[in-house]
Amino acid sequence: MSVENPASALEVSQALIRCPSVTPEEGGALDLMETLLKPLGFECQRLPFDCANTYGVDNLYARRGTSGPVFGYGGHTDVVPVGDLQAWTVDPFGGAVVDGKLIGRGAVDMKGSIGAYVAALTRFLNAPQNKNFDGSLSLIITGDEEGIGQNGTKKVLEWMADKGETMDVCLIGEPTSNDVLGDMVKIGRRGSMNFSLSVRGIQGHTAYPQLASNPIHPLVTMLHNLLEEPLDSGTEHFPPSSLQLTTIDVGNTTTNVIPADAKAHFNVRFSDLYSSEQVEAWVRERLHRADFEYDLQIRVSGESFLCPPGPLSGLISQSIEKITGIKAELGTSGGTSDARFIKDYATVAEFGLLNDTAHKVDEHCSVQELEDLSRIYESMLKGYFKV
Amino acid sequence: MSVENPASALEVSQALIRCPSVTPEEGGALDLMETLLKPLGFECQRLPFDCANTYGVDNLYARRGTSGPVFGYGGHTDVVPVGDLQAWTVDPFGGAVVDGKLIGRGAVDMKGSIGAYVAALTRFLNAPQNKNFDGSLSLIITGDEEGIGQNGTKKVLEWMADKGETMDVCLIGEPTSNDVLGDMVKIGRRGSMNFSLSVRGIQGHTAYPQLASNPIHPLVTMLHNLLEEPLDSGTEHFPPSSLQLTTIDVGNTTTNVIPADAKAHFNVRFSDLYSSEQVEAWVRERLHRADFEYDLQIRVSGESFLCPPGPLSGLISQSIEKITGIKAELGTSGGTSDARFIKDYATVAEFGLLNDTAHKVDEHCSVQELEDLSRIYESMLKGYFKV
Ligand SMILES: [Zn+2]
Ligand SMILES: [Zn+2]
Repeated sequence: MSVENPASALEVSQALIRCPSVTPEEGGALDLMETLLKPLGFECQRLPFDCANTYGVDNLYARRGTSGPVFGYGGHTDVVPVGDLQAWTVDPFGGAVVDGKLIGRGAVDMKGSIGAYVAALTRFLNAPQNKNFDGSLSLIITGDEEGIGQNGTKKVLEWMADKGETMDVCLIGEPTSNDVLGDMVKIGRRGSMNFSLSVRGIQGHTAYPQLASNPIHPLVTMLHNLLEEPLDSGTEHFPPSSLQLTTIDVGNTTTNVIPADAKAHFNVRFSDLYSSEQVEAWVRERLHRADFEYDLQIRVSGESFLCPPGPLSGLISQSIEKITGIKAELGTSGGTSDARFIKDYATVAEFGLLNDTAHKVDEHCSVQELEDLSRIYESMLKGYFKV
Repeated sequence: MSVENPASALEVSQALIRCPSVTPEEGGALDLMETLLKPLGFECQRLPFDCANTYGVDNLYARRGTSGPVFGYGGHTDVVPVGDLQAWTVDPFGGAVVDGKLIGRGAVDMKGSIGAYVAALTRFLNAPQNKNFDGSLSLIITGDEEGIGQNGTKKVLEWMADKGETMDVCLIGEPTSNDVLGDMVKIGRRGSMNFSLSVRGIQGHTAYPQLASNPIHPLVTMLHNLLEEPLDSGTEHFPPSSLQLTTIDVGNTTTNVIPADAKAHFNVRFSDLYSSEQVEAWVRERLHRADFEYDLQIRVSGESFLCPPGPLSGLISQSIEKITGIKAELGTSGGTSDARFIKDYATVAEFGLLNDTAHKVDEHCSVQELEDLSRIYESMLKGYFKV
């Protein structure tokens, strides 16, 4: 796999899409990154990680330069599965351009962003006037963002800390735009927690409820208590925290039987007003009100965080406006990303393509958006290093 | 199959238990009934019924005498399956007596009652002083009470109406006793309805709830509304009406997906304060309050009814007190029975053995209770025909 013109965001993105790198497969994507970055002066370090009960995953850390400041880029070459292959209008790993659109798995999430950034780096570093800027460039490219995330960015950051490798700021290329390229930059993320609630009663016959203890009744009370009022109504940079019941399952097929057990799951996305411990307390307080024993299993996917508006988000906004004329909103909506790990090591902000087709059939971006994104990234590099 | 001493409640009951008549199998039970009733002067009519989408079932109508009044008995020889055969301590169809207890499927529900009644009839009709009583005896013995009940008592009653066959009163031998034989006579039954509630929303991602419509949230509100207050607090002869949620099923296994559909089932047992239409209105009023579209499927198993205390329940109570010294309560608790059909044709009351082992492993009654029940039934016959 090689790229004829690495200064073209489209060509680099197409080449990346042609690597079938569904998590946890490397698919040639990291090899390709090395062939693109090494000629630009990057030192590349492959970092395969593994741990008990998970698949192993390969990662790439690349750095050019030794002096500060360090401008970092965080991305993932792994992609979600294609889903219903029959429903795709093109080969999801073909990198086809149809009617001005690049269609393929990863087009927006997020091989398109990586392609745009590599092309931007190529143009920036090959321009004679930029040759002698003060500072370094680094990239963390993981193969474990769409999976369980245990062997990816998190471990690369630990490895970097061990080696004394730091970043001052880090741009993450996740698809943050909503309606037009540049309308949204993310400067934080909501936290996310999953809850599994079980209530145990005593089985019996519906004709003799006094001899049974129906677990569904207290469960409904508990869930009603959780829905009665929202956690908050949002903050300056966060949308309202949201609690969504995702399933209730009893599985009783007999109409005259009161079941012994009832279970529900719910997901909470929470703002910077809450830590996960505070969300748990909020939830338990409402469950307790039902005055019935319950079991609650909790999994914290990520804490909420905010990198308050500052030089990095300002630089992104200025570059967006310069290239597209759009004034970006600084937001925190949507799911989690590896920003949740990187924020502990550097100031992070996320900006990339439109997210509306991410993870879907015929995932795509327009070639125009891709080239605009690359010019925005290039403008950021010039602005950051003041060249 | 024959019975050496048909005046023995135990022997008749054992012979009936030895007929493996799990619904819809006749199992020889109705044949046995004919061999017992014909020598007593009964004319026997077998009434096999069938209809679309159900199994066919055999039934027996027997009558002795042509003049009024007609004293009827209603019973079923079909039994529920044995369940966990390994857990039984004896052959469920063996009719074994262990430590003074008759153990077997149908021992209390309700071959024991039929055995007690046939023995009572045998003694009553063979006693020279009773030979010339005024009136008739009739029995409706169905093979479709534990099943869906479409080809049993309901159709026998229609057939009887066609033929001009009537009953003045009807004793139903279902197991009504709770703690000791004779503590409960049933003079009505609660109504029973099953509801299937479906709510449809719009599937989506838990990170973007504003783009989805979570069907579980309005469903929880609806169910909470149903549980907020009881339908009533009971009436003179009825326990409080009861609404039991029996299942909620969403079946969503993905923690970050808001599902498209959510379903719940519930059962309502209602007193004589309600018709099924009134229960439906009560339910719909509470569902409507949630202000969200829903689909409601309803199946009415039976309306509530009451045969107010009168000569038949008085006769049963007096006979119980005479034989056992117990003062019976006149109640309406428990599940439905074929009384729901017969009550439209005759005054009904139900009285039989203890119900605590019905439908369970090692279903049983004491031999003493069985013989006492037979003597109570015999006393009723003497009382009714004033001999
Ligand atoms: Zn992504
Ligand atoms: Zn029964």
